Amino acid sequence: MKLTILGCYSATPKVNTNPTAQVLDIKNHLFLIDCAEGTQVQLRKNKIKFSRIKRVFISHLHGDHYFGLAGLISTFRLLTREADLHIYSPKGLKEVITLQMKLSNSWTNYKLIFHELNSKKSELIFEDDKVEIYTIPLDHRIYTNGFLFKEKEGERKLNIGKVEDAKIDVAYYRKLKQGFDVENKEGKPIKNETVTKAGPKPKSYAFCSDTAYNESLIQIIKEVDLLYHESTFLDKHEKLAKSTKHSTAKQAASIARQSNVGRLLLGHFSTRYDDLTCFITEAKETFDSVELAKDGKTFEV
Amino acid sequence: MKLTILGCYSATPKVNTNPTAQVLDIKNHLFLIDCAEGTQVQLRKNKIKFSRIKRVFISHLHGDHYFGLAGLISTFRLLTREADLHIYSPKGLKEVITLQMKLSNSWTNYKLIFHELNSKKSELIFEDDKVEIYTIPLDHRIYTNGFLFKEKEGERKLNIGKVEDAKIDVAYYRKLKQGFDVENKEGKPIKNETVTKAGPKPKSYAFCSDTAYNESLIQIIKEVDLLYHESTFLDKHEKLAKSTKHSTAKQAASIARQSNVGRLLLGHFSTRYDDLTCFITEAKETFDSVELAKDGKTFEV
Repeated sequence: MKLTILGCYSATPKVNTNPTAQVLDIKNHLFLIDCAEGTQVQLRKNKIKFSRIKRVFISHLHGDHYFGLAGLISTFRLLTREADLHIYSPKGLKEVITLQMKLSNSWTNYKLIFHELNSKKSELIFEDDKVEIYTIPLDHRIYTNGFLFKEKEGERKLNIGKVEDAKIDVAYYRKLKQGFDVENKEGKPIKNETVTKAGPKPKSYAFCSDTAYNESLIQIIKEVDLLYHESTFLDKHEKLAKSTKHSTAKQAASIARQSNVGRLLLGHFSTRYDDLTCFITEAKETFDSVELAKDGKTFEV
Repeated sequence: MKLTILGCYSATPKVNTNPTAQVLDIKNHLFLIDCAEGTQVQLRKNKIKFSRIKRVFISHLHGDHYFGLAGLISTFRLLTREADLHIYSPKGLKEVITLQMKLSNSWTNYKLIFHELNSKKSELIFEDDKVEIYTIPLDHRIYTNGFLFKEKEGERKLNIGKVEDAKIDVAYYRKLKQGFDVENKEGKPIKNETVTKAGPKPKSYAFCSDTAYNESLIQIIKEVDLLYHESTFLDKHEKLAKSTKHSTAKQAASIARQSNVGRLLLGHFSTRYDDLTCFITEAKETFDSVELAKDGKTFEV
């Protein structure tokens, strides 16, 4: 898993700061998370191939999280995209995009498939053989979801010495990797776990933006490897965070600690702060493994 | 009059090329013409004060001419704008913007006044004591208008020697500048034109994008000082221009020549061309005074 931050600031795009958008690469499948104005340019700057984006996840319908999507959809058309594009978002986005296309009399050549969300509970919204994606209900001024990306258990690793000792035919190696018990050349049943070991631990990533301090998400994101949690404000603006339903760095760190996550990535910074190192200092008082998101920066999970 | 090009490329925003947006400064009043994705950032890059924009003119509802407007409207709100914002556009834009605001539950503190256009004839859409603004019906794939900005006749200039010789009281100077006849200190009537001369010639600017070659606009833009005419393509792609209802550099130059304009400014370039000097070369065969638009460049009228 590799996460590329395209934008990690709140509210308005400025010359050197972009509002929310990120790309998560899971075994070469790209998932676009939020799509603020300017996302297409950020994708180009970061040399991310447009055609590899198959699914887009929109947390909520504040403009700084989706105003770049209509342009991206148009660009996909101009690039003669043919692959389906799946969009997961709160209800309403389909109406906006459809209206914009109607007014411009420009329809897509590819299928645009909207998955409109309205559940207030965490739900599985996508699954294939490599990954499961769940919503994370957040507490913001309008209906908002974060997203949890969980790799599935990978193939088991063969212990070649033991496999050979057990006289298992090469034709069965694939089944062994998939976790099945097999028979050896002499017809004797062999228990999978006696000749294989678990593959690498599956990774997980949770995206939580925008949200007020919200303990109910702890159970959903428990022990993820990487948590992106919004920290629009510092603790000194805690009242402002509360009234706008955003979080402080201290609160994000508290959620990270209670969820026992691997690393915490802070983002969605208000542009009122010139020096972002204060976010690190504040969060580290509560949780040790903290990093700052940065437009254009990549984080390996 | 001063024109600043914020974006002059067609279709999609790229790292170094922005789709259509420009700002026209007429005696310190700013008019925003088209508002593609990224316009807010371009405004900041060019140090243009957001609060000075009072009127926005949208030529048509293809995304590369208005996808930046919703973001700009949100930003105005965050900047606690109070002044009214007038938006002139084809019918439909109000519905899009209103839907987006409804979904984000974010209303503006300032008045948003939509002037939706649907006439196929040129009409006066704005007038104050300094300027008149007319639509220029264009021929594109969807309903599209260009815009003609005409300064009004300014004040007349006093010929101070003659004014003094005619023994006119200083109290009448203002009336003289406004073009009225007055009486002198002895009660004798003085004809205005004997003691004043015309002020500077009023300037005019015509914005024509997007459009196929269209001779019917000649009568509307006749003798403007500066004409911005789209030239998406070069003559070698004339068929493509025709099928997409765009113009070539040669066609733009032909319109400029037939309209007897002062200068021609080419723009809305397809990003397929690496070297834009061919546009100048091609246009100059038909019309002498040609310049290329460039993102961030300013043109005095």
